[in-house]
Amino acid sequence: MNYTLKNVPERTIKPRQYGFTMAMDKGLSIREAEDFISICGDYVDIVKFGWATSYVTPNLKEKIKVYHDAGIPVYFGGTLFEAFITRGQFDDYRKVLDKYDLQYAEVSDGSIELDHDKKCDYIHKLSEQVTVLSEVGSKDEEKIIPPYQWIKLMQEELDAGAWKVIGEARESGNVGLFRSTGEVRSGLVQEILTKIPFEKIIWEAPQKAQQVWFIKLLGSNVNLGNIAPNEIIPLETIRLGLRGDTFNHFLSLQNNL
Amino acid sequence: MNYTLKNVPERTIKPRQYGFTMAMDKGLSIREAEDFISICGDYVDIVKFGWATSYVTPNLKEKIKVYHDAGIPVYFGGTLFEAFITRGQFDDYRKVLDKYDLQYAEVSDGSIELDHDKKCDYIHKLSEQVTVLSEVGSKDEEKIIPPYQWIKLMQEELDAGAWKVIGEARESGNVGLFRSTGEVRSGLVQEILTKIPFEKIIWEAPQKAQQVWFIKLLGSNVNLGNIAPNEIIPLETIRLGLRGDTFNHFLSLQNNL
Amino acid sequence: MNYTLKNVPERTIKPRQYGFTMAMDKGLSIREAEDFISICGDYVDIVKFGWATSYVTPNLKEKIKVYHDAGIPVYFGGTLFEAFITRGQFDDYRKVLDKYDLQYAEVSDGSIELDHDKKCDYIHKLSEQVTVLSEVGSKDEEKIIPPYQWIKLMQEELDAGAWKVIGEARESGNVGLFRSTGEVRSGLVQEILTKIPFEKIIWEAPQKAQQVWFIKLLGSNVNLGNIAPNEIIPLETIRLGLRGDTFNHFLSLQNNL
Repeated sequence: MNYTLKNVPERTIKPRQYGFTMAMDKGLSIREAEDFISICGDYVDIVKFGWATSYVTPNLKEKIKVYHDAGIPVYFGGTLFEAFITRGQFDDYRKVLDKYDLQYAEVSDGSIELDHDKKCDYIHKLSEQVTVLSEVGSKDEEKIIPPYQWIKLMQEELDAGAWKVIGEARESGNVGLFRSTGEVRSGLVQEILTKIPFEKIIWEAPQKAQQVWFIKLLGSNVNLGNIAPNEIIPLETIRLGLRGDTFNHFLSLQNNL
Repeated sequence: MNYTLKNVPERTIKPRQYGFTMAMDKGLSIREAEDFISICGDYVDIVKFGWATSYVTPNLKEKIKVYHDAGIPVYFGGTLFEAFITRGQFDDYRKVLDKYDLQYAEVSDGSIELDHDKKCDYIHKLSEQVTVLSEVGSKDEEKIIPPYQWIKLMQEELDAGAWKVIGEARESGNVGLFRSTGEVRSGLVQEILTKIPFEKIIWEAPQKAQQVWFIKLLGSNVNLGNIAPNEIIPLETIRLGLRGDTFNHFLSLQNNL
Repeated sequence: MNYTLKNVPERTIKPRQYGFTMAMDKGLSIREAEDFISICGDYVDIVKFGWATSYVTPNLKEKIKVYHDAGIPVYFGGTLFEAFITRGQFDDYRKVLDKYDLQYAEVSDGSIELDHDKKCDYIHKLSEQVTVLSEVGSKDEEKIIPPYQWIKLMQEELDAGAWKVIGEARESGNVGLFRSTGEVRSGLVQEILTKIPFEKIIWEAPQKAQQVWFIKLLGSNVNLGNIAPNEIIPLETIRLGLRGDTFNHFLSLQNNL
């Protein structure tokens, strides 16, 4: 850090198993990706190329190399997996992962109907090729999955070989873990945490109020995802109690020690 | 495209007469414009320098050249035309177009009262110098133009020499074609389409839900405008049914073939 | 300006005592800061590194130098001052200002309870080292300070040595000067202006509607702050009556002369 402040919460360092930040790149240029890394490289653990943006991104190989050279893994959003699956092109998907040297992949069913045994089978198969992040939750705001079901799905996906499970929120933060207003489904989150270890979950939390909510509940080192590139530095200050939103939260924790 | 997916909707290619994307640059630097082109060059058909931002933009000539060298035409927002007209400086405006080597210009009356014959006269005169885009709709959310009137205005402006007509929405998407909440005035749009050919219209649709609405109604190759630079790649995936919002829409179209 | 328009409101030029724009940098990279300066250098009078983002910003010294070389002073957000004060590290804070060659500093109490005499004492002490901007208003939307109290606080802080006083709004524009909806507390602003000279106040006004409101009330050359980097060019056009929002406001002023 640039100067010394006493009693700042401790953060995990890379390679992080928790305290993890996943950023969403939805179309940065090569130079913008370089800029992003220059400022946020220490704080970003993995970058998702949102949904199927990789399909239309020019110089894709070169762009991935920029992240990989900086030690930041890249993976393609789950919607791309679904686009291949729904077209019966799973083998083609596996080739795409190889072609682009990807070490991570997401398995999701946010836009398609997929029998859960079949989803777990895909997780299992892909986990022999790459590290798998699997996502639970629908992109359809009308489809409400009850908490016990979230837990069952998450547990089965971890058992099938997923490295971590992601709680769905989309880029906007208004489905899955959240109500359409962006409000956290707090009962859902709390119930999930009774069964699934917190370090195995990445919570998609694109809105500041959502990030603040998770950090207040679970501490500086909660895993958060779908963070916009220009919100990584702000998020880091929220994790450290150095923005108004968590300033007093962390100070009072210190004072109660 | 970077890999092969079956049954992806076909997109028109440049130079496009429809399937057209107009981006709004409201103050990118030269290097940001270069970055933008490097990632979105194939998907952007024309760039508008929003309203009168060109007045205060440094290195304006050089910036225009960056776009022109990439084969992307630039035009100045209609508010600039109105600023000249309302000051009795039409001839000065024509000189500005020449000075900056512009091949396109917008004629609008979103902020001023302008007799429609006079507006059409400006369109006619300017169409001898450049390709004219004319815009219908007020920037004042209180001024509601009824559908039959939109149709009449659009038709007369096309007759006067406009290459395409633009439906007003502003950068924010909450006037003209849309209610102040951003909701589409769907009856208006549908009625316009009974009379004006869809390839002659550019719908300003800055919000994602608005883009999705038009793409579901009119297909991948609808003309859309006022797209922010960092939303061009996302828009392209929506056009292709590769984002959650249109994923099932295009799949079910395929299945019904 | 790039071309001549008649009857455009006059703007002050650098170094400005009023008509002042304060931009908020919450994590630009070095190259992004260069880009920002290349397009907005003439329009930005001072840059705030938002709250305590400076703590986690890599290459901080180099980044500050980029702004300083362009003649644009940098200061660290008031939350950083508060983070040092609340930890009893005021002397360390003074050393940080020296270490980073800062000529400006902010004194605030948006997140902490600070006796006002003590706050004024900090302003007084720091004003011997740097130029002080002091901020009035809480970051807590529940804490409403009545107008006569705002005036008293502002006056005492100016008397203690503050160069200008800032009206709090946060990055989002929904506390302090504004209701949680973003609506201006107009009675508050008007009452403040009966006692404090308008050139001594910087109004944080991140939202466009807020900027428009202040410009309509106080003219092109009102001091505004917390402007996002990509909103500087748009703001400049609003100040000049060259965007729809103030287009007719300034024209009718002209016509009434």
